Amino acid sequence: MKRKGIRFERELIHALWDEGFAAIRSAGSGSSGYPSPDILASNGKITLAIEAKVREKLPLYIPAEKVRELVMFSNLFGAKPVIALKIKKEKWRFFEIDVLQETEKGYKISKDNFYMGKELGEILNRYTQERL
Amino acid sequence: MKRKGIRFERELIHALWDEGFAAIRSAGSGSSGYPSPDILASNGKITLAIEAKVREKLPLYIPAEKVRELVMFSNLFGAKPVIALKIKKEKWRFFEIDVLQETEKGYKISKDNFYMGKELGEILNRYTQERL
Repeated sequence: MKRKGIRFERELIHALWDEGFAAIRSAGSGSSGYPSPDILASNGKITLAIEAKVREKLPLYIPAEKVRELVMFSNLFGAKPVIALKIKKEKWRFFEIDVLQETEKGYKISKDNFYMGKELGEILNRYTQERL
Repeated sequence: MKRKGIRFERELIHALWDEGFAAIRSAGSGSSGYPSPDILASNGKITLAIEAKVREKLPLYIPAEKVRELVMFSNLFGAKPVIALKIKKEKWRFFEIDVLQETEKGYKISKDNFYMGKELGEILNRYTQERL
């Protein structure tokens, strides 16, 4: 599962470069003790801090702490916090924090909100529009 | 040497967080085939793309290709390209591309230009001033 996660993350990095973004994979927060998104990408105008998840199927549960760290990092770095989710046979979908469903211990993405996630082109367009 | 490099890189990450920057270590360009600086750091105003080097002593040679990739990545990401160098018994020093000495195959940092490198506080101040 871990190896598959890295393969899909590399595909995502590739897709971001194709869209004109410079993107890097983080070495992981384990290396520093500081919060760290999985991927950072920017085209000099829009910067995305991406937590990338790969799952066979829904739902995806995300601990509150993870989301807090992503938002904290993003606020300091000047990035947009985004959860990217790859489900089998689906394209990557990108979720802003406000479309996540709250649970007792954090958040989830289920069948109810999966299609509130945007495809890559859509989310890049959206942020580009915001700046105009 | 590699392990020591990672230890010093973590110290640098720590120093950046102390200065109010969100900083991550990259997983390395090997993971994607795309150019990738060792460290990305931003406080939402200034973003640094840092190539970090640790050496026992001077000079440090840097291949032209490495500098080209750092500059290309930085231009796309909207970051300032910087070489950070840790020499034994010296503090980290930060070099902008224009203070590197050209060689036949690239660039170097020698005794002649080592003190043209700035300490962390100095380089952060400098970029902050530029924006005023």
